Amino acid sequence: MNAQQLFEQIRAKRSFLCIGLDSDIARIPELLLTKEDPVFEFNKAIIDATVKYVVAYKPNLAFYEHRGAAGWNTLYKTVSYIKKMYPDIFLIADAKRGDIANTARMYADAFFKTFPFDAVTLSPYMGHDTVEPFLRYNDKWAILLALTSNGSFDDFQMIKNADTGRLLFEEVIAKMMNLSTENNMMFVVGATRWEMLAKVRKLAPEHFLLVPGVGEQGGSLAEMAKHGMNKRCGLLVNSARSIIYVDRSMRFAEAAGAAARNLQQEMESLLKEANLVD
Amino acid sequence: MNAQQLFEQIRAKRSFLCIGLDSDIARIPELLLTKEDPVFEFNKAIIDATVKYVVAYKPNLAFYEHRGAAGWNTLYKTVSYIKKMYPDIFLIADAKRGDIANTARMYADAFFKTFPFDAVTLSPYMGHDTVEPFLRYNDKWAILLALTSNGSFDDFQMIKNADTGRLLFEEVIAKMMNLSTENNMMFVVGATRWEMLAKVRKLAPEHFLLVPGVGEQGGSLAEMAKHGMNKRCGLLVNSARSIIYVDRSMRFAEAAGAAARNLQQEMESLLKEANLVD
Repeated sequence: MNAQQLFEQIRAKRSFLCIGLDSDIARIPELLLTKEDPVFEFNKAIIDATVKYVVAYKPNLAFYEHRGAAGWNTLYKTVSYIKKMYPDIFLIADAKRGDIANTARMYADAFFKTFPFDAVTLSPYMGHDTVEPFLRYNDKWAILLALTSNGSFDDFQMIKNADTGRLLFEEVIAKMMNLSTENNMMFVVGATRWEMLAKVRKLAPEHFLLVPGVGEQGGSLAEMAKHGMNKRCGLLVNSARSIIYVDRSMRFAEAAGAAARNLQQEMESLLKEANLVD
Repeated sequence: MNAQQLFEQIRAKRSFLCIGLDSDIARIPELLLTKEDPVFEFNKAIIDATVKYVVAYKPNLAFYEHRGAAGWNTLYKTVSYIKKMYPDIFLIADAKRGDIANTARMYADAFFKTFPFDAVTLSPYMGHDTVEPFLRYNDKWAILLALTSNGSFDDFQMIKNADTGRLLFEEVIAKMMNLSTENNMMFVVGATRWEMLAKVRKLAPEHFLLVPGVGEQGGSLAEMAKHGMNKRCGLLVNSARSIIYVDRSMRFAEAAGAAARNLQQEMESLLKEANLVD
């Protein structure tokens, strides 16, 4: 999938929502625990109930690795199910990997060949070696951490470079602009610092941004659209807990669908305001 | 295991060698490919042949994830085998994870509870949130990327902070000195920049450093010891390909043992010179 094709999906769904499958066996409805693979049954029900309202799913790998090989098997079943049933969905491995070239090649193979992911989140600390193997695949994406929204984001990301005057997260984006295109790279930008989102947009006008934490971290969709939208929308907004755990009764999937629909409708209004859909 | 116990292992083995289990099914001896789990058989043979000469093993997770759930099963069997047969060995998950607090907790659980690792490599980009959940376990370790030895290490790690005059990798170490002790934190420092190793040693005099790439990247053990050793040795030196792939015949394990023994003997001399063993 390239940027234009992703935009077509956004137009078709009238949504730029990504659902984070941070599926924790300790938090899913008890009624599923008698199933052979409770987390897969949970994911499947959530996906079927929400797929009309989303363009992407993003399994958070920690939640699968937590159960070792069994968790990786659940992950494989989940993403295979999505690719088979809903081939137009954009599939993100939230893995935050970051390693040197030959190891990065193994990771790229793992996510793009062994698994049918479209994109992988990566950490930039080791520099462009970490990213390049992922950019060699056609229609696949690296999604690089730039400005995150966690409490300690400013330990290092806001350090100002004495030579250039740029902040570290700006250096990350600037470096990657030379190596990537808007068809193979996105940046992770936290939802709570609007002035920074505008800065990122200036550095990377054409790129998609993955914005985590709407719902959980108080990000406002309208503010985000105002500062971050571009001519192909340019935003994928992730929500996890406030959709997938909104209800723990037998109605959990229906409730997740309703929560996703609420966000989709808000997004549809914003896409209309921006004249990106009729 | 705490720092003193690790030092006792180093004294007992007269070695500070760590072997990287970067075990690639495409590079192991063909004679193993008929086995049910060729990579596990390879690891087991390498471990049995080298364990006398090493204090630590470090599986590189990319090489296991590459085969999805099957690879994670091989990883589990490998580390379980080591813990059962050689309980004094220090076990490092070379995972380079780095995520926010609740996700970091899941990763810490994955490596310290689901798997019996003693330590996990982490990337500092998202700040101390990434590290803290790992520090809450007794006798377990976070090993944080500081100054790596890959080609693009200087994309970001050498950026000078306009406010403090310190380089990014120095900021990483300085920040973590406040949050950690020499019993729960190590730093990754590349083997090819001696003047930087000396800088790290000044910032973190008591901490163990994990130095990758001896053999592969031309690091000299004597230079490393000169600039990096402290009163408890303070170094774990990793070698992977130049030990585990030194021979692809039926004699692969014996050859790996001989390669490990060569490094161990060099290390023994350096430990003697430093008066750390008799």
